[in-house]
Amino acid sequence: MTGLLTDLYELTMAAGYFQAGKAGEQATFELSIRRLPADRSYLILAGVEQAIEYLLGLEFQEPEINYLRGLSAFRSVGDPFWDYLRTFRFTGDLWAAPEGTPVYAGEPVVRVTAPLPEGQIPETYLLAAITFQTLVATKASRMVGAAGGRAVVEFGTRRAHTAEAGVLGARAAYIGGCIGTSNVEAGYRFGIPVYGTSAHSWVLAFPSEREAFARLHEVLGEGTVYLVDTYDTEQGVRSAAATGGRFWGVRLDSGDLLAESRRARAILDEAGCREARIMASGDLNEHRIGELVRAGAPIDTFGVGTELATSADAPSMGSIYKLVEIESRPAAKFSPEKASWPGIKQVFRLADVDIVGLATETYPGTSLLEPVIQGGRRVREKESLEAMRRRAERPAGGRPVMHSRALEELVRAVRRGVS
Amino acid sequence: MTGLLTDLYELTMAAGYFQAGKAGEQATFELSIRRLPADRSYLILAGVEQAIEYLLGLEFQEPEINYLRGLSAFRSVGDPFWDYLRTFRFTGDLWAAPEGTPVYAGEPVVRVTAPLPEGQIPETYLLAAITFQTLVATKASRMVGAAGGRAVVEFGTRRAHTAEAGVLGARAAYIGGCIGTSNVEAGYRFGIPVYGTSAHSWVLAFPSEREAFARLHEVLGEGTVYLVDTYDTEQGVRSAAATGGRFWGVRLDSGDLLAESRRARAILDEAGCREARIMASGDLNEHRIGELVRAGAPIDTFGVGTELATSADAPSMGSIYKLVEIESRPAAKFSPEKASWPGIKQVFRLADVDIVGLATETYPGTSLLEPVIQGGRRVREKESLEAMRRRAERPAGGRPVMHSRALEELVRAVRRGVS
Repeated sequence: MTGLLTDLYELTMAAGYFQAGKAGEQATFELSIRRLPADRSYLILAGVEQAIEYLLGLEFQEPEINYLRGLSAFRSVGDPFWDYLRTFRFTGDLWAAPEGTPVYAGEPVVRVTAPLPEGQIPETYLLAAITFQTLVATKASRMVGAAGGRAVVEFGTRRAHTAEAGVLGARAAYIGGCIGTSNVEAGYRFGIPVYGTSAHSWVLAFPSEREAFARLHEVLGEGTVYLVDTYDTEQGVRSAAATGGRFWGVRLDSGDLLAESRRARAILDEAGCREARIMASGDLNEHRIGELVRAGAPIDTFGVGTELATSADAPSMGSIYKLVEIESRPAAKFSPEKASWPGIKQVFRLADVDIVGLATETYPGTSLLEPVIQGGRRVREKESLEAMRRRAERPAGGRPVMHSRALEELVRAVRRGVS
Repeated sequence: MTGLLTDLYELTMAAGYFQAGKAGEQATFELSIRRLPADRSYLILAGVEQAIEYLLGLEFQEPEINYLRGLSAFRSVGDPFWDYLRTFRFTGDLWAAPEGTPVYAGEPVVRVTAPLPEGQIPETYLLAAITFQTLVATKASRMVGAAGGRAVVEFGTRRAHTAEAGVLGARAAYIGGCIGTSNVEAGYRFGIPVYGTSAHSWVLAFPSEREAFARLHEVLGEGTVYLVDTYDTEQGVRSAAATGGRFWGVRLDSGDLLAESRRARAILDEAGCREARIMASGDLNEHRIGELVRAGAPIDTFGVGTELATSADAPSMGSIYKLVEIESRPAAKFSPEKASWPGIKQVFRLADVDIVGLATETYPGTSLLEPVIQGGRRVREKESLEAMRRRAERPAGGRPVMHSRALEELVRAVRRGVS
């Protein structure tokens, strides 16, 4: 992975640390979410695998180094730093909570301990990778919860912020509980089940809807999902029912989904297609899904796109990656409303509370952060998406997060040291 | 570019067209924005170059084809289709408005004419590429407008939906008028000017802020931007001014930016650092920038991240890619609130109005859609980002969009044909 996928200041800081003789100093950085977005009582952690792969592959190619040398920001930087970059690898440690874990504001979810520049440079990439997938996994979890046992499929690649975001969003949505995605690359790369229906253009490409449906069934057989709203939805459902042969069902993609689904169900049942199912899509989110479910809409599967792929109501959140210790000295910033907590930490998950404490403390219960990379080598096997999904099932909702007394004392001591 | 970066149904539709003997039928699809997001009176088109590169590189590798063959959706699909995919290339035409062009709701901005499957498969990728970059370029244009001549730099990669979205978002922001980006890969790949300041962790990594600043200046010299809010902002500005030597200025990243910038300006001036500049950042958007500018805040440069990289108030918009003609037969869908316009179209930009008409019509003024790919070969040279930026300068704001009489007549004729 190219080392250039970062902000310029990460690299000028790395050069500065090197020139100041600090490139060998051991530093620890922690990534956490400062505040949950509105409407969220928990987050589903995702994106850690991409963070791992980034750290393990991080390097600078010669043309990239030549590019950097030409930048005015590096005009005072001498050859030794460029030699250093040439052989630059991540040689440190990564601790992380496993993907699919419900996590809360203020909890470190990823921790990097490494020589200072090796901890600094990854900041930008780690924040992007983990924040985005966590947003989407969380949104998926909320939609799946609202669907009350009905299936939710991720259909949002066209609305994702680049096709690559579509692939990784599909991964996150699957971790969060969706049964699959429309994104074929996500299926190919990650083994996620892929789903599809049919296109309005298919219907338009034939002289009539009936002919279009008949030809569709020849290709897709029992798996056929008829998109019935190209011209007139009710007529579309009748055409689907009249096509003959077994088929998966129909998809409603516009209009009043409650009324349309009831009408479609009645038409299908009347035509003897009791096993045909109904998929609904069209600007759905957890609130609209919840309304449809509570109203008893006869919808079997929800297809969600825009709102899921972009986490539309919260397309970003305040994640931070902060230096917490350097050469055994705890560190923290105290900017107004942006203070950080010093010290190498661990999250202890007890029965009814999470305690953020120092890593040297012990508590009963689970410790969320586990070693993944040590000395630049992976020490924890790549996990299956299924295992992550199981972890994300039935998230606990809101949960109190406390700080240990030792951590409270440390922050006071660091503040005193500064003032 | 892998053909798997798409939705499953695009590929099942392609297989269906192939099996139905329609793979050779000439089809035209048009991409347009159905509605502008709230608060927007225009859009700055971006992402076309990525669409071009996608189309020119589109192919299916053998392992990808093997993956598709294993999917249940393709169980009725025979070998001839897989042979077809093996040699699949885009052989059609692409017409597009140039990047940086202000565009409006309902205007086709990209038009693909190709054998039916070659027009169908790219839908997902083209929508993602163009919608996302257009959102960011538009947001950048609004921020740059609000800044009234002061510089705006894009700093949002950590908030982008994947690092790749950070790179392409930086590109779009530059087209929209930002002077540069913090994203180094965007600088390397696209030649965009890169900017950086310094890190809170730099300050934390030294025993005192004063020492941190002194060492920073040794590395960055005249380009040094001191981040002054790690402990106490006012003290930070004093430390910066006291460090000695010329430096770019200071960066305020928290607190009340109006008050802080005035205080910082006074301290810098008093210390004789009249040439030192002030950069401000921290959850800025076009509204907050406008307020600060109107209040006369002595801020020289705005650093914008989250709101720009995610187009936070409008992280998506309703873009569509619709079949408008097949084998010389105009086509349209009439779903409630989701109707599309039939026929191969052109956008005619007159002095005070845009007219969406049929491509066969002629009007005085500029025709927005220009040929870019013909017969699968690029016929328009890659354009510089500078040319795109110039096009985006001083966008016209809102602008009436009318349909030509010929187009109105066509849509009525197509509706009659269906009903």
